[in-house]
Amino acid sequence: MNNDSLTLADFPLHSYDKVRYGDTDKQGHVNNAVFSTYLETGRVDFLCHPDNNLLSDKTSFVIASLNLKLLAEIHWPGLVDIGTRVVRVGNSSFGLEQGLFQEGRWVASAETVIVQVDNATSRSAPLSDEAKTHLQSLIAQGAAE
Amino acid sequence: MNNDSLTLADFPLHSYDKVRYGDTDKQGHVNNAVFSTYLETGRVDFLCHPDNNLLSDKTSFVIASLNLKLLAEIHWPGLVDIGTRVVRVGNSSFGLEQGLFQEGRWVASAETVIVQVDNATSRSAPLSDEAKTHLQSLIAQGAAE
Amino acid sequence: MNNDSLTLADFPLHSYDKVRYGDTDKQGHVNNAVFSTYLETGRVDFLCHPDNNLLSDKTSFVIASLNLKLLAEIHWPGLVDIGTRVVRVGNSSFGLEQGLFQEGRWVASAETVIVQVDNATSRSAPLSDEAKTHLQSLIAQGAAE
Amino acid sequence: MNNDSLTLADFPLHSYDKVRYGDTDKQGHVNNAVFSTYLETGRVDFLCHPDNNLLSDKTSFVIASLNLKLLAEIHWPGLVDIGTRVVRVGNSSFGLEQGLFQEGRWVASAETVIVQVDNATSRSAPLSDEAKTHLQSLIAQGAAE
Repeated sequence: MNNDSLTLADFPLHSYDKVRYGDTDKQGHVNNAVFSTYLETGRVDFLCHPDNNLLSDKTSFVIASLNLKLLAEIHWPGLVDIGTRVVRVGNSSFGLEQGLFQEGRWVASAETVIVQVDNATSRSAPLSDEAKTHLQSLIAQGAAE
Repeated sequence: MNNDSLTLADFPLHSYDKVRYGDTDKQGHVNNAVFSTYLETGRVDFLCHPDNNLLSDKTSFVIASLNLKLLAEIHWPGLVDIGTRVVRVGNSSFGLEQGLFQEGRWVASAETVIVQVDNATSRSAPLSDEAKTHLQSLIAQGAAE
Repeated sequence: MNNDSLTLADFPLHSYDKVRYGDTDKQGHVNNAVFSTYLETGRVDFLCHPDNNLLSDKTSFVIASLNLKLLAEIHWPGLVDIGTRVVRVGNSSFGLEQGLFQEGRWVASAETVIVQVDNATSRSAPLSDEAKTHLQSLIAQGAAE
Repeated sequence: MNNDSLTLADFPLHSYDKVRYGDTDKQGHVNNAVFSTYLETGRVDFLCHPDNNLLSDKTSFVIASLNLKLLAEIHWPGLVDIGTRVVRVGNSSFGLEQGLFQEGRWVASAETVIVQVDNATSRSAPLSDEAKTHLQSLIAQGAAE
């Protein structure tokens, strides 16, 4: 993606969080670690949505890595807009790119790798064909933006 | 209890939390809502300790009410000392008093009512005789202090 | 207030929070301490709103006490609706009643006492006439509901 | 560093956090976003320690990027040990490597880039000679381990 000028419209999946007073820290802005919470909201609103049928009862998604770039402060009060897109679909894992925005301002971006694991064995488990097809359709959408 | 001059020594059960940078908010001190988190630490370190055998597999403790008085600010960095004592043991519920201290300074006190509920029905469930005896022994200890 | 059947409509001031995945704990529902965070959102959305002119630059609001009753679990995903009303206006303090609701279900209520303090001395400071008038108008609204 | 077998002893700077009950989420383990909080504890216990004299009154440290690998679950109750070392010292920025451990088990590692910014202009500001010397001494220590 063109990291020079990301906007929420560059992402096919949109979510949001409401900034809480307690998200701020003594520096006056939103605490750095809370950026990870906003990114999680964007992921779970998508990955756990019942319409998506991405998970079976016997598997879970776990995050293997998070690569976060912090570009600007987030302030209270207000909302954070969260854009998410799929960039890679493997056999048992997939990659996401996300952007955080406040009042249209790009404040952070992140790449994450998500792995499906078997709940019984804690080992990686292949994505279902349905899940792969759904995830791949979101790559196409992202590219079209 | 004598609310004029509480110290950690007034409580038979002692726990602590380490104040986190993110516990602070834009006012520069620890956010008010985090006081509830410190109180929870004092409760669960006691109620969920395996040596205490307070709970069966089929029941859970739920908090029915929290009456919190905030007396002074809590600051980062540092620890919070948490004192807990039992003040009442009923059939399926019991009452706790707690104090929060930072560097010996009394910063908050709280009364909570905890109810044991049956996991299957979500209704209140009688405390076991063993649990009642253990909880009552802590009333005696508190009074002796 | 009639504590038997509270609804959001019983409160003149309405706010909300979006439940976060991380608000849950290992019991599967929203952690008890997060209830205090939702109540704070309801307070600060009102007390810190620039249109209300409740505070001067030289004073802050601090919470002196919180009396919380937890009535039901809060679940992810979803929103929490937060109702707030003024019940008492003193010289330098005032009292609030709040209710938390999820999908119309009453899940918690709380009474808080807020004190205005002088930033320089940390002592209580009288509310301005404008603040008193504004706060008292919200008692009337609450009564009319 | 040898990422195959990190231990706390591979890091010259040691800190810790106490896992809180509310750090867990409905999956039963510590929420992924809280890993960022533990890493912050390791950074601020070092960067903000008054003996280190790393910052002047006119500057702040901001985190520009976080590259986090999650290797295993963190569980309640318990502590998290946090190891930190300096890997690069630039003109106005420096790089850290960190490891998280629970009961000796390596659970996560992270690389962060920290930039010193001028509080008045929000632009990057050169590190003092004293800060550079102190940070570089920690590279040497890390290499010696």
